[in-house]
Amino acid sequence: MNSLHLSILGQQMSNLTGVRAIMKDIIETLRTHQDRTFINLSAGNPVILPEVERLWRDATHSLLNSDEFGSVVCRYGTSQGYEPLVQAVQLEFQRQYGIRLSDRQILITPGSQALYFLAANAFGGKSQDGQLQKIVLPLSPDYTGYGGVSLTPEAVVSYRPALEIDRPNHRFKYRPDFQQLHIDQTTGCVIFSRPCNPTGNVLSDDEARQIVNMAAPFQVPVFIDSAYGAPFPGLHYQGMSPLLCDEFPNVVHCMSLSKAGLPGERVGIAIGNEAIIQTLEAFQTNLCIHSSRYGQAIAAHAIQSGQLSQLAETVIRPYYWARLQTLESALTEFMPEDVPWHLHRVEGSIFGWIWFQDCPVTDWDIYQQLKAAGVIVVPGRPFFPGLQEPWEHTEQCIRISLTGSDTDIQLGIKALGEITRQIYAH
Amino acid sequence: MNSLHLSILGQQMSNLTGVRAIMKDIIETLRTHQDRTFINLSAGNPVILPEVERLWRDATHSLLNSDEFGSVVCRYGTSQGYEPLVQAVQLEFQRQYGIRLSDRQILITPGSQALYFLAANAFGGKSQDGQLQKIVLPLSPDYTGYGGVSLTPEAVVSYRPALEIDRPNHRFKYRPDFQQLHIDQTTGCVIFSRPCNPTGNVLSDDEARQIVNMAAPFQVPVFIDSAYGAPFPGLHYQGMSPLLCDEFPNVVHCMSLSKAGLPGERVGIAIGNEAIIQTLEAFQTNLCIHSSRYGQAIAAHAIQSGQLSQLAETVIRPYYWARLQTLESALTEFMPEDVPWHLHRVEGSIFGWIWFQDCPVTDWDIYQQLKAAGVIVVPGRPFFPGLQEPWEHTEQCIRISLTGSDTDIQLGIKALGEITRQIYAH
Repeated sequence: MNSLHLSILGQQMSNLTGVRAIMKDIIETLRTHQDRTFINLSAGNPVILPEVERLWRDATHSLLNSDEFGSVVCRYGTSQGYEPLVQAVQLEFQRQYGIRLSDRQILITPGSQALYFLAANAFGGKSQDGQLQKIVLPLSPDYTGYGGVSLTPEAVVSYRPALEIDRPNHRFKYRPDFQQLHIDQTTGCVIFSRPCNPTGNVLSDDEARQIVNMAAPFQVPVFIDSAYGAPFPGLHYQGMSPLLCDEFPNVVHCMSLSKAGLPGERVGIAIGNEAIIQTLEAFQTNLCIHSSRYGQAIAAHAIQSGQLSQLAETVIRPYYWARLQTLESALTEFMPEDVPWHLHRVEGSIFGWIWFQDCPVTDWDIYQQLKAAGVIVVPGRPFFPGLQEPWEHTEQCIRISLTGSDTDIQLGIKALGEITRQIYAH
Repeated sequence: MNSLHLSILGQQMSNLTGVRAIMKDIIETLRTHQDRTFINLSAGNPVILPEVERLWRDATHSLLNSDEFGSVVCRYGTSQGYEPLVQAVQLEFQRQYGIRLSDRQILITPGSQALYFLAANAFGGKSQDGQLQKIVLPLSPDYTGYGGVSLTPEAVVSYRPALEIDRPNHRFKYRPDFQQLHIDQTTGCVIFSRPCNPTGNVLSDDEARQIVNMAAPFQVPVFIDSAYGAPFPGLHYQGMSPLLCDEFPNVVHCMSLSKAGLPGERVGIAIGNEAIIQTLEAFQTNLCIHSSRYGQAIAAHAIQSGQLSQLAETVIRPYYWARLQTLESALTEFMPEDVPWHLHRVEGSIFGWIWFQDCPVTDWDIYQQLKAAGVIVVPGRPFFPGLQEPWEHTEQCIRISLTGSDTDIQLGIKALGEITRQIYAH
């Protein structure tokens, strides 16, 4: 095999996009410097919290001790998902939000990345009449993975936000720019994360509602990525209400069990209008028949017993909240007063997102210099998929993971302080 | 949501193709006639064999009792697959076939359907220069799922076979028609199943080699679907050698754990040239990050211990072999001598495929009449994806699953005998 003749899709989809290319660089770095200790603040992998691992172990024990085991792992299932998990989701949403979902409003996917793949390609891309149906990301930056899921990458369009800057406190916040944001009959679907990976932003209920209402007249589905949201993992540090399909028929509430401690099992959940769900389900059937069932079975157990949403509130959220306090204190302690750094208000998620205003070097340079100093973060550039216009801001940010220990966060920020002092001094 | 505006891909992929549409009809039938007992000979779901379930239970116990549990289910993994499973596959292939695979020659996918989705779209479909890269199925009928995986359905092309008919014994066999078969620079990839679902055909080593050699000069990858093949589940009832990438660099040997009793967990394995594997891996990263890890972990355990290939030989194959004997005796006993029925030689798989020569009605009619008599089989038409020319044979076959009990198989064939007698009498 001297050369492979890939199709257009093959060429496109075999490119590692966005942050995955950087993750590869990180893995190579760690591999080639095994003698060296790095402080790794790049991880999207959640911390294994003992209470959470115990929940999954207990659920596995129950499954093993039940007659159900054979029918879970030794049988094909329905494409829609393992029935007890679908029922557990119905009950959870009735308990938490008082809404009655029909079982046809729920789809289980092999992780939420796969869900966005289905959504982006069922609704975005070329339409029958040759038009391009756009995949609109209302506020850039947003999850880097949205850049890789579309088989028609030019369909992905994102919008530069307005910035609310609190200079004295070194804080800032992105706001959707409704003057710019464009949703119409050329829009195939809208996707955004709330809370947002990488920024920790939580669009307000009003902002989210406004976006959904812009899409409604055009029958455009809005996929709200709640991988960090309610009811689990519940990684929001302020009040927020999920928008659900009982009130907003064009909303698909998309959940993931990854940040609730089950990333290895790839469980995504889509909740929305029956017609949308059935479209995604049929696509999934053709793509992979159905999601793996063990993960679905232990999730059913953990949701049905109420333990998962309880642990989200009493264990998972407090854990990352405490790391966030460490990050904020460390920034206050170690960042030079004369460096114009700004932490995005961390209203949710497991990340801190720092913007270096008027930075003399790029995010990639900061990443490299920190790496040389033994600290690994993620440069911000890959989190602006679909942004059309040039914007220097896209090369002035880094993402810091709250999965590090307190000591790691402190040492990491100390190094960041020293390096940025030098950068701005030149 | 009055109407959904799907993209071309969305419209295409949300169609239930081939046998899935029939499966839906079967599920609806069973649901709406819950008062009635059906003999179901339609299933692709393998029988839960006690020894096999015990293997998966034991492996799950080991996982639970190990420190590994948290890192398996509570962590993201690499897109390539869970490392101990990749290693177990390497060892198994060294043990069984004496070949040394590098770890970069192996990819784990969320089931083998997903693997064909990646393969069909990375290598088939539109090329950069606007040409159509064809997905060639060398011998029709073949697995119905190949009809649904391509995002460019017109790329799928299959070839009418030659028929070897043994009239006195009511047997026949498909042979690839090398006069017709066309593989050249317009071919993106080749896919076929060996043993074949639905026919039970096993292409001879010579035939398989000839196809592979036709593709080699054009650097065209050949995906050999071994979902029923060696080393597990090993559902071949005669000698056959897998073609592997050490000798045939353009071959990707594709395995599934579904028929080895793990369909619920969706584990596919691709073994081939590093460049092909890396292409598929990157596509998979963009699509779904990685496959679920619990299934991979218990598979690693079962393969590494040698138990899986042992059970394949001592339990799984003998089980279906015994059902096959029942099918053949029942056909001899119950089929009218004057009905020109022909069973395809069952050289592998878990299906019997019967052709009714010069049948006065279609396969769909036979299916409906059998269903009315309380017996469910699968009509043959959906197993001819990509066949361009009209051929009456495509509506003269049915598939019978060997997952039924001996009694069910006997009763089912008895009903088939009566119904086809009436059909041919008119």
